[in-house]
Order: sequence, then structure tokens, then C-alpha cells
Amino acid sequence: MEGAKDVEIRWLISKDDGAENFAMRMFELQPGGHTPLHTHPQEHEVFVLEGCGAFVYEGREYPFGPEHVIFVPPNKEHCFKNTGDSLMRMLCIIPTSDG
Amino acid sequence: MEGAKDVEIRWLISKDDGAENFAMRMFELQPGGHTPLHTHPQEHEVFVLEGCGAFVYEGREYPFGPEHVIFVPPNKEHCFKNTGDSLMRMLCIIPTSDG
Repeated sequence: MEGAKDVEIRWLISKDDGAENFAMRMFELQPGGHTPLHTHPQEHEVFVLEGCGAFVYEGREYPFGPEHVIFVPPNKEHCFKNTGDSLMRMLCIIPTSDG
Repeated sequence: MEGAKDVEIRWLISKDDGAENFAMRMFELQPGGHTPLHTHPQEHEVFVLEGCGAFVYEGREYPFGPEHVIFVPPNKEHCFKNTGDSLMRMLCIIPTSDG
């Protein structure tokens, strides 16, 4: 992913498994890592498993930690950062239609 | 839910939040608790957060534990049981269209 740093994405459930409507991915961000600042037409649903970070959304930063839930509406600029000193992991679910 | 025992469901992200395509729920099953044995036309995607249990699927039981991922295809009979002696928690994501 262009603009990403120290991020790994693993697809846990996808169309290959017969999931017609949405896919589940695991994001792993190393300390200092971040996803690209970007927008897309589909919503995301995020559940933070471990670590801590910041959700950058329309120019503001919102800190988060384990068990936090984040809904990213369509077409809103955002990124995720690992702001801690350990691995940050989160689930990210997206529609498969245009994901 | 008829046929359920010691299960609590919390809706983490739903249509009320603007989620048009799918919803995220948290299931909490006490020891001995279970969801009803049932089928439905929509798929489920499950991520186990803590505890251990069994996924009953078409007459067989599949044990699971933390970080296990389960895809439930449409129209397949299934239920979830807590087979341990502590709380079992899992995320369950469903399409909103008929969820």
C-alpha cells in the first residue's frame, strides 16, 4: 500500500471462503507504523485487539486502545497509527463489493 | 432468543451508526451457555476474543479458543457453546440487510 509504513494485512475471511457480503482482515502495525491517509467509498468497521494508537479522521487525532470499536464512514479521509511501543493489532471488516 | 442460554448480545456497530452493509455484535456466553441451534439466510463471521467453546455445525462439534476465526455459511444449522469454566466472548458480524 502506497503511503503505508510497517503494516501487515492478513485476510482472515474473504470471498474465497464464500463470504459474499464482507471480508475480515487483521492489521498488524509495528511501533511507528501507519496506514496511508486515504478515502474510499466503502465503510470500515474496526475492533482493536491489542496495543494503542491514534485514529486520524478529518484532521483530528483520536487515541484508542484495546477493545475500542471504530466505525469509518464512506468517503472520509482517515488513517490508523501505532503510537505505542509494542505491536498494535486490529480487525478491519469491509464490504467485498468494492473492497 | 428462544433456545439460548446465558448469552448476552451487545450491538457495537449497527445501522444506527450509519453502517449500511453489516453490523458488529459482541456475544458473551457464560460457562454452560449456548446460542440456539438455528439457521438463517445470511452468513456470519466470528472472531473469538476469549474463553473456549464448541462450534456445532451440521451435527459435528468443532472446539475453538481465543483468536479463532469462524465463517458460518448461509442456511447451515449451527450453534455456539461455551465449554469452558470462564466467560467466552466473540465478535459476530452479520449483513444488515436481513440480520
